[in-house]
Amino acid sequence: MTTNELMALVDRSLFAGIGYTDEQGRQNIRNVFCVWHRGLGRHLISTNTSSAHVQSLMRQSSACLYFSDPKAFEGLCLYGKIMLHFEREYKELLWNPGDEKYYPAGIDDPDYCIMEFIADSGRYYRYDGKGELTQDELLKFDEGRTFENGYAKTDGSPAA
Amino acid sequence: MTTNELMALVDRSLFAGIGYTDEQGRQNIRNVFCVWHRGLGRHLISTNTSSAHVQSLMRQSSACLYFSDPKAFEGLCLYGKIMLHFEREYKELLWNPGDEKYYPAGIDDPDYCIMEFIADSGRYYRYDGKGELTQDELLKFDEGRTFENGYAKTDGSPAA
Repeated sequence: MTTNELMALVDRSLFAGIGYTDEQGRQNIRNVFCVWHRGLGRHLISTNTSSAHVQSLMRQSSACLYFSDPKAFEGLCLYGKIMLHFEREYKELLWNPGDEKYYPAGIDDPDYCIMEFIADSGRYYRYDGKGELTQDELLKFDEGRTFENGYAKTDGSPAA
Repeated sequence: MTTNELMALVDRSLFAGIGYTDEQGRQNIRNVFCVWHRGLGRHLISTNTSSAHVQSLMRQSSACLYFSDPKAFEGLCLYGKIMLHFEREYKELLWNPGDEKYYPAGIDDPDYCIMEFIADSGRYYRYDGKGELTQDELLKFDEGRTFENGYAKTDGSPAA
């Protein structure tokens, strides 16, 4: 798959799976709403600070982020780490009207935080083969890009 | 969620995500077609012996299996391990007409094998809360059950 084809997979996804290791050393997966991307290598996800995956990722930041479209038999597993942001700048950027139902105290709710997934490499799968995405390819593809809310580019269905 | 509600989530899923650790110690996720279940605790998945996840799971069998329905905001992460089966009994059970396109040498193709996921516990998530699924609950729910092809119970859409 080309980087443009991989970007199209990411762009049309509403959700991604985060793979991480919990305090008991167990592999875990959690589906998260993931539409803010800076190219292929960086992704922002709003979440509850108190949730189990955030608590685990505070201790052990290495993780993977998996975008998939089972209908098209396409998958992309990005390897990297999660950085947690509590700065207002990030929290304002991702805030949507109605988010008070998740974070009653609003943007400054301490239970509201932003996870940034930072990829250093990846691996993709499609019906016609698989391959590696290197750090060089990621850096080259993402050069000059900024974070964008890609919600309008998704197909609106939570297939991923 | 009750065990019956969790079983309904598993039953209507066509795919599940396997979370595992690769040889480089990286978290990985791979979506797999997963419709053979023995209750909540055991699941059979056919796959290529040569694939990266099988090669990793041969070395380190601990894994998670994640069923999710993003539309319903439901998710179940099962914790446990993968046992690999190369016995004809399992390979015959899961063989479908047309599988020659994945395994050209047929049922006895050495590149065809069956992964059995064996759960020892789990954790579920729904819009209305989350909770733990204990080994006792799993054993009690699964008692007396046998493996069944649940394909007809899925909704046919690859949402999971």
